[in-house]
Amino acid sequence: MDTPRLYLQLAGRYRQAIESGTLLPSQRLPSVRNLMRTHDVSLSTALQACRVLEEQGWVEARPRSGYFVRRPARSTIAPVPEPESLVAINPDDFVGMHHRISSYVAKCAAHPVSINLGGAVATPDAYPMEALQRAMARVLKHQPGLLVRAVPIHGDPGFRQVLAQRALEVGLQVSPEEIVVTYGCTEALNLALRAVAQPGDTIAVESPTYFGILQAIESLGMRALEIPASPQHGMSVEALSLALHTHTDIKAVVLVPNYHNPLGSVMPDEDKARIAALCARHAVPVIEDDSYGRLHDEPNLPRALKSWDQTGNVIYCGSAHKTFAPGMRLGWLMPGRWRARVEMLKYANTRPNDSVVQIAAAEVMGSRLYDRHLQKLRASLLQWRNQVIDTIAECFPTGTRLSPPRGGLVLWVELPPGTSSDRVFELALQEGIRVAPGTLFSNSGRFSNFLRISAGQAVTPTVERAIRRLGDIVADQAAGTSSPKKPSPRNP
Amino acid sequence: MDTPRLYLQLAGRYRQAIESGTLLPSQRLPSVRNLMRTHDVSLSTALQACRVLEEQGWVEARPRSGYFVRRPARSTIAPVPEPESLVAINPDDFVGMHHRISSYVAKCAAHPVSINLGGAVATPDAYPMEALQRAMARVLKHQPGLLVRAVPIHGDPGFRQVLAQRALEVGLQVSPEEIVVTYGCTEALNLALRAVAQPGDTIAVESPTYFGILQAIESLGMRALEIPASPQHGMSVEALSLALHTHTDIKAVVLVPNYHNPLGSVMPDEDKARIAALCARHAVPVIEDDSYGRLHDEPNLPRALKSWDQTGNVIYCGSAHKTFAPGMRLGWLMPGRWRARVEMLKYANTRPNDSVVQIAAAEVMGSRLYDRHLQKLRASLLQWRNQVIDTIAECFPTGTRLSPPRGGLVLWVELPPGTSSDRVFELALQEGIRVAPGTLFSNSGRFSNFLRISAGQAVTPTVERAIRRLGDIVADQAAGTSSPKKPSPRNP
Ligand SMILES: Cc1ncc(COP(=O)(O)O)c(C=O)c1O
Ligand SMILES: Cc1ncc(COP(=O)(O)O)c(C=O)c1O
Repeated sequence: MDTPRLYLQLAGRYRQAIESGTLLPSQRLPSVRNLMRTHDVSLSTALQACRVLEEQGWVEARPRSGYFVRRPARSTIAPVPEPESLVAINPDDFVGMHHRISSYVAKCAAHPVSINLGGAVATPDAYPMEALQRAMARVLKHQPGLLVRAVPIHGDPGFRQVLAQRALEVGLQVSPEEIVVTYGCTEALNLALRAVAQPGDTIAVESPTYFGILQAIESLGMRALEIPASPQHGMSVEALSLALHTHTDIKAVVLVPNYHNPLGSVMPDEDKARIAALCARHAVPVIEDDSYGRLHDEPNLPRALKSWDQTGNVIYCGSAHKTFAPGMRLGWLMPGRWRARVEMLKYANTRPNDSVVQIAAAEVMGSRLYDRHLQKLRASLLQWRNQVIDTIAECFPTGTRLSPPRGGLVLWVELPPGTSSDRVFELALQEGIRVAPGTLFSNSGRFSNFLRISAGQAVTPTVERAIRRLGDIVADQAAGTSSPKKPSPRNP
Repeated sequence: MDTPRLYLQLAGRYRQAIESGTLLPSQRLPSVRNLMRTHDVSLSTALQACRVLEEQGWVEARPRSGYFVRRPARSTIAPVPEPESLVAINPDDFVGMHHRISSYVAKCAAHPVSINLGGAVATPDAYPMEALQRAMARVLKHQPGLLVRAVPIHGDPGFRQVLAQRALEVGLQVSPEEIVVTYGCTEALNLALRAVAQPGDTIAVESPTYFGILQAIESLGMRALEIPASPQHGMSVEALSLALHTHTDIKAVVLVPNYHNPLGSVMPDEDKARIAALCARHAVPVIEDDSYGRLHDEPNLPRALKSWDQTGNVIYCGSAHKTFAPGMRLGWLMPGRWRARVEMLKYANTRPNDSVVQIAAAEVMGSRLYDRHLQKLRASLLQWRNQVIDTIAECFPTGTRLSPPRGGLVLWVELPPGTSSDRVFELALQEGIRVAPGTLFSNSGRFSNFLRISAGQAVTPTVERAIRRLGDIVADQAAGTSSPKKPSPRNP
């Protein structure tokens, strides 16, 4: 009998063939009968695989002739190039992340937003609201005493049990006692940084990276050393190695190895293994933020970098925010050999988390419903992301570049050279469209012509209009610079 | 018509007369008829006042003769003396709060506890569980979308509105926008410290003080300068003034002006005003922790120190933990002129709080139910505290001292000189009785013969047995030292 995921594997195979150029646009896919014979699968598996490819926009059905490879608009958009230099950005070039984030947050709060392409989260409909609601209601009904009792230390044991079980799926074997529950991945990152480094210390991060990481580092009086990273492979192992040799004051490396925000990169397994070994050799702890690992397109969940850690040198941080419960503020960490210090810092920073939310989350996360939810979410994200990429490819001006990621919630879009994404952000905001300007993701000015655009919702006609409008704004701004402007099809 | 609180005011008057020695044990209280005439109150007010005094153990009814002043056991216990010196404790004498707290927490976790006299919280039954449960259920039913939506910035507007209204009652006029919601008072204290001071800076605190304050300071790499404080008036204004003149590196003063943990002290209004002015003059910010202010015995809610603040120099921190919802992890702060910095630090540390809990708390805290709950809680606490004091007075050895506080949840008990409260703690724990040793409340060894004993529950026969047993353990330990041992009535 076919395994349930076989059709996805089959579709993935042909997707790869198309992406790698083995199958070219307008070429015919093997017939369903052929697929059955070649791969020894059932009729329904072969048909489902074709349908998946069609839904994802890789092939189109032509009546009575079969499936043909589409020329997706996105194929016309150039990828973001690899970083040119391996040299890290000097933290002395700081321009102040606090100020930029506060001003971003204040501007967003001051403008009513009708289309939000600024977040790194999917639309609320994509999350299992009813299951969470039922689970919370059940806890409240059966254990209302939790509301009036001081909270137990280190987090709810049942929730930590489920977290330990789910960790097996990313290659981690930890006992529930080795997990500390936190208020979001944000608190987990803060505790991890404080456990391994002191104010004044240098922390290596990807460049660009999630602004929350830069802000945590800055707010703790530490200095971010930005290591070149690419949308293809994430942080360059060579660049990190170079930095570890030249900067002796690096006290930790913070990484988002899977579906990086904003790059979308997944670090190849070899690189994960090399970084684990390299950092162990240098006795520099790694803080791994795996907020997005479960949002993979391919059938296989990417492994945690920590699964190559032999000495407890990697602190693994997770979150419920992106995957199943954005409103619950739940995160966790597996602190490796810093467990005692992290436990102490959690107690000193906020005390243990309240119980009701943890128990409800455990119920949902411990059930098959969680797997079904993730399967559905991942399928939606793949589809939505491709729709957004297609729309960008169509309506952004020539010179726009984008490397389609293979999972996650965001797109990292390079605008034509010289285009100010801060200006684009401001102009779009005035029309009720929110995006995140590239300047939020680095202390250098290096990404001032990048936008992070959310791909966490379907491209409805309204969303499409917003992206087109964004394209026009970008084109206007790009035209104001030296780069050529391609006439937008939306500007007759 | 009598105001609803008149009988409490009347009872308070006679309580004071008894405490001050104006009315002596076995003297007769004025007759009900006399009370009506003297104070121009109704029969029911006079009767209620007498009943309150009787419940609180100040008077006893003798059939047909009226009410007579009791000789409470607690009147035989000597008060804790005022601190002898005004000189602050040098932070270089640090012995490491982290280690002591972690070891305390670990030991408590390792031993099953049957009687918990170690916490600074009332028994769960004393809190409005059903109201909180109903409010949460209502939020979940009507706004389940909150569970799957990223949380709004700075906290729920409705909750902040209620907090602003309730702040009026302690003399504070702030707009809802000037309030930041946090994960407990613990996070509020951390954010406040980080807003005004840097690692390496010195922070003045009461000596003794709540170990969470000492731990927060230590975990942030700051140094606690312990200023002498008494159970009568809290921190000595003279000692603080002296310290501000001699230590130029003091960057903040952290105070618990109302029902201090562990002292039980309330700072007199003049002292609050003087400290506000003194610190403003020295440009040293004050962090006020008002976790316990609403747990007053007297009819009047003590004013916040911040109500004397004219320049935004005082950061006011509050909590739902002690007053109405120990399991919800809700705190807040009014950051005065550090608002922008505190908002930024909250965002960097844990992101804004989740909404469901805030909205439910707002519903309860914004209703009359909250007032009724507090009234009942305060009456219970007064009664329970007196029961605990009476039991201690009866069964602890000679040389034990205690100053009965006028509100709050804890008692600060001085054991005969030389008695090790660490040892008492360990021995009691082995019998399932938890108390907090004095060593947790100072970085000096100054309080090693003190115990903090919870007064947050009724003295049932089981609790009474536990306190008696504790008295025996203390007597044994005291006997091992040079101090004389009074034969315990329980040790025949
Ligand atoms: C890489 C990364 N880590 C952490 C977070 C925040 O996690 P949480 O909401 O669980 O605090 C985000 C959210 O944008 C993120 O992109
Ligand atoms: C003075 C004081 N502040 C703060 C706290 C902790 O407050 P929360 O539980 O709201 O974090 C306590 C609890 O013991 C306390 O005694």
